[in-house]
Amino acid sequence: MASWLPIPAGSHFSLANIPFGIISTVSKPARRPAVAIGKHVLDLAAFANQGGFAKLTALPKDKLSVFTQPTLNDFASLGRPVHKATRAYLRDVFRQDTPYPDILKGNESLQKEALIPLSDVETHLPLRIGDYTDFFAGRNHAQTVGALFRGPANALQPNYNHLPVAYHGRASSVVVSGTPLHRPWGQVLPNPKATEPVFQPCNRLDIELELGMFICKSNQLGAPIPVNAAEEHVFGYVLMNDWSARDIQQWEYVPLGPFNAKNFGTTISPWVVLADALEPFQTSGLVNDAELKDYLREKRQDNILDINLEVSLTTSKNNTTTITRTSSKNLLWSWPHMIAHHSISGCNLQTGDLLGSGTISGLEAGTQGSLLEQTQGGKAPVQLEGGEERKFLQDGDTITIKGWAGEADDGLVGFGECSGTILPSVQRD
Amino acid sequence: MASWLPIPAGSHFSLANIPFGIISTVSKPARRPAVAIGKHVLDLAAFANQGGFAKLTALPKDKLSVFTQPTLNDFASLGRPVHKATRAYLRDVFRQDTPYPDILKGNESLQKEALIPLSDVETHLPLRIGDYTDFFAGRNHAQTVGALFRGPANALQPNYNHLPVAYHGRASSVVVSGTPLHRPWGQVLPNPKATEPVFQPCNRLDIELELGMFICKSNQLGAPIPVNAAEEHVFGYVLMNDWSARDIQQWEYVPLGPFNAKNFGTTISPWVVLADALEPFQTSGLVNDAELKDYLREKRQDNILDINLEVSLTTSKNNTTTITRTSSKNLLWSWPHMIAHHSISGCNLQTGDLLGSGTISGLEAGTQGSLLEQTQGGKAPVQLEGGEERKFLQDGDTITIKGWAGEADDGLVGFGECSGTILPSVQRD
Repeated sequence: MASWLPIPAGSHFSLANIPFGIISTVSKPARRPAVAIGKHVLDLAAFANQGGFAKLTALPKDKLSVFTQPTLNDFASLGRPVHKATRAYLRDVFRQDTPYPDILKGNESLQKEALIPLSDVETHLPLRIGDYTDFFAGRNHAQTVGALFRGPANALQPNYNHLPVAYHGRASSVVVSGTPLHRPWGQVLPNPKATEPVFQPCNRLDIELELGMFICKSNQLGAPIPVNAAEEHVFGYVLMNDWSARDIQQWEYVPLGPFNAKNFGTTISPWVVLADALEPFQTSGLVNDAELKDYLREKRQDNILDINLEVSLTTSKNNTTTITRTSSKNLLWSWPHMIAHHSISGCNLQTGDLLGSGTISGLEAGTQGSLLEQTQGGKAPVQLEGGEERKFLQDGDTITIKGWAGEADDGLVGFGECSGTILPSVQRD
Repeated sequence: MASWLPIPAGSHFSLANIPFGIISTVSKPARRPAVAIGKHVLDLAAFANQGGFAKLTALPKDKLSVFTQPTLNDFASLGRPVHKATRAYLRDVFRQDTPYPDILKGNESLQKEALIPLSDVETHLPLRIGDYTDFFAGRNHAQTVGALFRGPANALQPNYNHLPVAYHGRASSVVVSGTPLHRPWGQVLPNPKATEPVFQPCNRLDIELELGMFICKSNQLGAPIPVNAAEEHVFGYVLMNDWSARDIQQWEYVPLGPFNAKNFGTTISPWVVLADALEPFQTSGLVNDAELKDYLREKRQDNILDINLEVSLTTSKNNTTTITRTSSKNLLWSWPHMIAHHSISGCNLQTGDLLGSGTISGLEAGTQGSLLEQTQGGKAPVQLEGGEERKFLQDGDTITIKGWAGEADDGLVGFGECSGTILPSVQRD
C-alpha cells in the first residue's frame, strides 16, 4: 500500500500501523493526540478542527472533542469499532489513491498545520493511567529465575500453569520513553548470610523486557469480563521496561511481593499500536499442559502476538550492543487470559489501566529479557562492544527496546523505541 | 466548646473535628465538598458561593473553586496550612460565640441552603484515588498470622522490624461505606494437600480493620520525602476495611503477593478527619528494638495515633455483635515512616493517593482486626449474639467499623462508620 506522503522503507510507522500517541511542540505546548506516519505525525487536534474527520461517519461531530484532550482516554473509551474505523479512515487519507483527496493530500494549508516532523514533537504518556498491573506470563523467565532461586525442580510455583500470576504495580511512576531515572536507594542485605540490612544505592539494577497493554472498555465492579469477550477491552499495546532493583527486591519482597524494587520507574514507548493493527500477527504461544478452568478457556487458538523484540544497551562510552533478540510468542498467557483472570474476582478494569505481560524471554543466551537471567544471577557478565561487560546496569547506561511485527515489504507495524537512561543515585545528606 | 447549632452529646462530628467529605442530594445530584457537624453537613459549594469564606484570608477568591469540585483533591493539594486555617475558620463559624455572626449564625437563608441534615445526603469517595498502597504496619497482626502459617519462632519475616512492609493495592475498587460487595469467585485449593485447584466462590471471606491515610502534597519522581517532613504530606484519615479472600490468597500469592484476594473491594469511611484534628491524639506505638536506618529516624516520639476502633458484625438475622475492640496504637510504623519508606526509592506520591496501615490488632481475643486471627485460622468460631457463630463471613453479613478519639465531654473526633454488606456470589453460566 503506497502513500502520497514519503514513508521510508522499514519505517515502524507504515500505513499498516497508524499508532496513536500524545504530542506537544515548542510552538504549541498543549498536549494533544496524534498518529505517527513515516517520519511525521498528524496532529489530530488540528486535523479535527479543520474538518479532517468530516467523511468519517463513525465519529460524529459531538465526539471530536476526544482529539483535543491531553490524553487518549476519551478516544479509547469510544470502543474498538470506533478505533478500527478511525484507523482505517486515517490510512485511507494517506493512501496514494485516497478516496478523500481534498481532506489532506490536496490541502496544503492543512498539511502545513497538522503534519509535523516526528523530530519536532515531544511525546508524552499516551493515557492517564488509573491502575497498573504487572503479570508474570513469560514462563521462560519465571522458570529461569525460579531455578536460580529454588533449583530447577521447583522453578515454577504450583499455581503457575493454572492462573496468570500478577501483582499490582505503581501507576504514578510509569514514565514515557526518554525520561531518565535515578538509581534508587534502598535497604539490601550486604551478603546472602547477613541478617542486618545496609542502606545504599541499588547495586543490582536490572531491566525487564515486557509488552504493555492499555484497557479501553471498563467493566463494572462485580461484573467479570468473560475470556471470549476480553478482546473488546483491549485498546492497544506499548513496549515496556519494568526496571527492577534486584537487591532491594530480595530483602523486601516477603511476604507481600515487590514494592520499592519496582516503584521507582517503569518506562513505556509513546505510540500505542492499536489491537487492530496487530491482528494479522496473532499466533500461538507456549503450550500449557494444565487443564484450564472454564473461565480461562479461550476459543481462539491464535491468542498470542508474534512481535520481534530487541534490547540494546548503550554505555556512557557510547558503545551500543544488542543484548536480547526474542519474540513476544514467549508468553504462556494471552491478554484475554489476563483480563479474564484479573476481573474474575469482580475487580473493575477501567479505561486507561495498564497491564504488563511480565518479562519476555527465550531460554537460550541472547534471548532473555533481563540481566538476572542473562548473567545467571549476576555470575556471568554479558560481553559488550568495545570490550566492556555488565552484570547489572551502571550509571549512564541507556536501555533501548525496539519492537515490530511484519515485513518491510508489506509495511512494518512497529512501536518505535522505549528508551531510558540510568542517572547516578541522588546524594544523601 | 459550644455551638449555636445543636450538636448531640457523643456525636463523632463535634466542633473539635470538622471532617471533610463529598456529598450529593436528591435535589442537587452534583457531587460537592462538605463538612460534617453534629447531625448536619455544611455544603461547601453553597457556602463558598454565598460568600461564606469572605473572612478567611488563607483562601483567596481565586482558590474557592476547590469547593465546587466533585472530589477533595484540589482542596487537599492546597497544603496543610490551608487545611488548618479552613478547619479553624469553619469551627469559628459554628461556635456559640462566633466572631463571624453574620456569616451563617445570623444568616437564615444561607443556613437553609447550605445546612443539610446528614440523613438527607449521599456520601461518595472523598478523593479521586491515584494509587493505593497497603502497608503491614500492625505488628500484632503480622505476628499472629505469621505464627499460624510458619509457627511462633518464625512468625515475623527478617525484614519486618527494619522497614514498613507494603504492597501496591488496587485503587479502582476502593468504594465508599455502604457499597455492597459480591462474594468473589476464584481458584482455591480444596484441601491443604491438594495440588489441583478448584474454581468456586470464596469460602474464607475475611475483614481487615485498618486506618487509611490520604496524601495531600505530591513529591517529584526521584525526590524522596524526608521522614521528618512527611507530616506535611498527610491530608487526613479514614477507616478502612480491606476485605480479603483468604483461600484465594493462599493459592495465588506466591511469589508476587496478594492479587485477586484483595482487589474485589476495599471499603473506606466517607469523612476525612484532617491530620490537624487528630494532632491531640498522637502517642507512641509498639516498641521497635531494631536500629533504624537514618531515613526512618523520626524526631517525633509521639508518632502513632490513639484512635479507639470497634468492629461489629450484623447477620442477615439482624443480630449485631461487636467482635473487635482495639486501638490504632497497635502499629509499629508511623505514617511518616510509611511515607519516607515508600518514597525512598524515588517513587512519587501524589495528591489523592491512599495508604493503608495494615490490619490493626491486639494480641488478645476480642482485640484482633481479622477473623483469621480471631478464629485461629478458621478453627475456633467467634460466638455472636442470638446463638450464631462465624469462622468467616456469610452472605448477608454486614461489617461496620467505628472509630473515634477523645472524650464526649471535650467533643469527640470521630469517623462515623465504615460499613459494607456481603452479597451472594454472582451466578455463573
